[in-house]
Amino acid sequence: MHRREFNLGLLGAAGATFFDPLSLRSQSELRVNGKRITDHLSALSEFGKNPQGGVSRVAYSEADRQGREYAMGLMREARLDVRLDTAGNIIGRRAGKDARRRPLMFGSHIDSVPEGGNYDGDVGSLSSIEVARTLAENNVTTRHPLEVIIFQNEEGGLYGSRAFSGELQEKELDIVSTSGKTIRDGIKFIGGDPARLAEARRKRGDIAAYLELHIEQGNILHSEKIDIGVVEGIVGIKWWDVDIEGFSNHAGTTPMNQRQDALLAGAKFIQAVNATATSVPGRQVGTVGRIRALPGAPNVIPGKVVLSLELRDLDADKIEMLYQKIRDEARQIAEASNTKFDFKEINVNTPAPTDERVRKLIFDSAKELMLTTKLMPSGAGHDAQDMARLGPVGMIFVPSIGGISHSPKEFSRPEDITNGANVLLHTVLKLDNAGWV
Amino acid sequence: MHRREFNLGLLGAAGATFFDPLSLRSQSELRVNGKRITDHLSALSEFGKNPQGGVSRVAYSEADRQGREYAMGLMREARLDVRLDTAGNIIGRRAGKDARRRPLMFGSHIDSVPEGGNYDGDVGSLSSIEVARTLAENNVTTRHPLEVIIFQNEEGGLYGSRAFSGELQEKELDIVSTSGKTIRDGIKFIGGDPARLAEARRKRGDIAAYLELHIEQGNILHSEKIDIGVVEGIVGIKWWDVDIEGFSNHAGTTPMNQRQDALLAGAKFIQAVNATATSVPGRQVGTVGRIRALPGAPNVIPGKVVLSLELRDLDADKIEMLYQKIRDEARQIAEASNTKFDFKEINVNTPAPTDERVRKLIFDSAKELMLTTKLMPSGAGHDAQDMARLGPVGMIFVPSIGGISHSPKEFSRPEDITNGANVLLHTVLKLDNAGWV
Repeated sequence: MHRREFNLGLLGAAGATFFDPLSLRSQSELRVNGKRITDHLSALSEFGKNPQGGVSRVAYSEADRQGREYAMGLMREARLDVRLDTAGNIIGRRAGKDARRRPLMFGSHIDSVPEGGNYDGDVGSLSSIEVARTLAENNVTTRHPLEVIIFQNEEGGLYGSRAFSGELQEKELDIVSTSGKTIRDGIKFIGGDPARLAEARRKRGDIAAYLELHIEQGNILHSEKIDIGVVEGIVGIKWWDVDIEGFSNHAGTTPMNQRQDALLAGAKFIQAVNATATSVPGRQVGTVGRIRALPGAPNVIPGKVVLSLELRDLDADKIEMLYQKIRDEARQIAEASNTKFDFKEINVNTPAPTDERVRKLIFDSAKELMLTTKLMPSGAGHDAQDMARLGPVGMIFVPSIGGISHSPKEFSRPEDITNGANVLLHTVLKLDNAGWV
Repeated sequence: MHRREFNLGLLGAAGATFFDPLSLRSQSELRVNGKRITDHLSALSEFGKNPQGGVSRVAYSEADRQGREYAMGLMREARLDVRLDTAGNIIGRRAGKDARRRPLMFGSHIDSVPEGGNYDGDVGSLSSIEVARTLAENNVTTRHPLEVIIFQNEEGGLYGSRAFSGELQEKELDIVSTSGKTIRDGIKFIGGDPARLAEARRKRGDIAAYLELHIEQGNILHSEKIDIGVVEGIVGIKWWDVDIEGFSNHAGTTPMNQRQDALLAGAKFIQAVNATATSVPGRQVGTVGRIRALPGAPNVIPGKVVLSLELRDLDADKIEMLYQKIRDEARQIAEASNTKFDFKEINVNTPAPTDERVRKLIFDSAKELMLTTKLMPSGAGHDAQDMARLGPVGMIFVPSIGGISHSPKEFSRPEDITNGANVLLHTVLKLDNAGWV
């Protein structure tokens, strides 16, 4: 069902309506306007810009509100019908030929971590709007309605997409977000209605498919000089807080053999986590990223340590197996050091495989665009993992230079972003025409 | 030169002047009023009392000011002439028979750590006042002038005693103390005059001797059921801040073998410190009491760790030897983990041996009082270490139950405190009569 249409993306944005949409080239020759994506990324980076580079546009901050206003403006320029759902997600809709069809969705997020960069989330969000604009400028009407979605508060814990997929719990609304506001107040602040959150919820089967373009945030594509990552699935993540209880005492008067040093036990634990995570083949990771030692004075033996343990893998059973090994190690450390370990499960994201058929369309699109590809897991969590509960999802990765992310040094090259947006565009078109959607 | 005097301490405080000071018993039968020390400790504990037990009477706080007022009142009751030196140390003087003699000094401190206990410093300070009061009530006049001294801000870094011995540097006055006030403002707050600090300074030879009674803060005396510790010397302390530089990255997208995890390197370092400190015989200790990992999120590989390293021993050469071994270990860890270690020396206290002749008098006094003794190092720092620069010093330890200190659970038994105060009393009297003083 390829129609011949003029690719305005190659010539500029203006005057789309003056051309006969069917007269010039086939849909397969459509291209996004890469320069426009770069310009929009640059404009968006002003909201929450840090003097030392990068951006702090944490969800529910004033910068977030302004960035969202900017994105909604871009959606309107792309001739999308813009609305907020009650969770505060931004949805820009473009009607399809068949009103009975379920929407084909694509998008990402624009909130950032504190002192983050300008590519994580932004690339997928602004490229999605650009895809919609390219279609509009070329007067391409898909069979399915299209919905470009910008999820709110991805970085704080996938709040927008979890509200959308119905996983968000009422009690979580009282959690204080990085902005200082509770989730409840944050949702109000950005124009949602936390009292009517259920209305934002969609059920399994409500969407035709969901696609997300994102920067890799790792160094595989860049170091292997590959254009496009086709995501096999989003890893499961389990996060525990580990309390280690020793006995705090004077560092000068307590002999080495009479100590119950919680930090020494913690140090052994951190090594055990690393040793366990690397003890079996595979791409699993184990990280201790946070640690506090109390009371925290140079001249006092720490009596208590609190640290985080995070395990990730595409296979939930493997995470469980690693966790049990780490618990065993902790038991031995506790016994040897006269300390006590306590594990509190804080957060669980189950692994979310992408849809094999969607992956195939991404591969095909990339191939037609003469781009190299690699099948790979996503080590980072994404809104797509929640969307996988509602229907088939696919994810497209573009290279992160040096694998740096969540940092002002985060960078993806304009040509890589353009490639990713074009793969997104053509995957949308292929999905729209796929018999199984 | 023992004179026969009546020991009012055994009978009560009142009416000392009605008795003939020479008529009843010898000085060797003098005893402090232990009950009075306990009562005074209890009264002092009200200033800065914490609801959950113990006390927060950090130097230069309002509680500290009030506690000092209380102690000055006790000094006046003990018929001491009370004054503040320009550093804010409280000095209570009792004239001797020979005005040309240098003062025989004894005392301690009454400031506490945050959430500390009621014995560290307080026992020595209030017992010293009790000793003076016992002498006054028994009309004992020593040959030497006596000076009971309560040093200010011991816990924050021996500020009072370092001003007294001339070690305090002008630039240190700008340091912000735990109270929130700079040292300069703190000294003003308690009635000192930081602009005239030099006037507080005494020179080597300006004192006849200095004695300090203190709780052990360790578990040796209590666990070995010994009454009195005779301090061999105060250990030297070196404290470094160690910066470990790795590379911060996304915990999900950075494979285990591509990480530069500063916290993993820090964990190995903490173990190396422990292994090194226990690798040679002796009473040396090595402690990592403080650690920060940045950025400090469960899902981010720490790119930077700052931790403290503290080494203590009576022998400065041993500290240096252990430090060099630890530096070697750090070099190996850095190489293996692709991180960088940087050591910054923050504080040095050189070891301060006590005077052998003073130790002998303490042993003799304890023996006469039928108390068991043990020669031992002080693992904790004390004002006595600065006083050792001015003249011969001695230190008397009493048991800390369970070795607990710098904690609301800190406790020393009234009978042990009374024993310590009596040893102090008799060591003062013996020193006063020693030919070499």
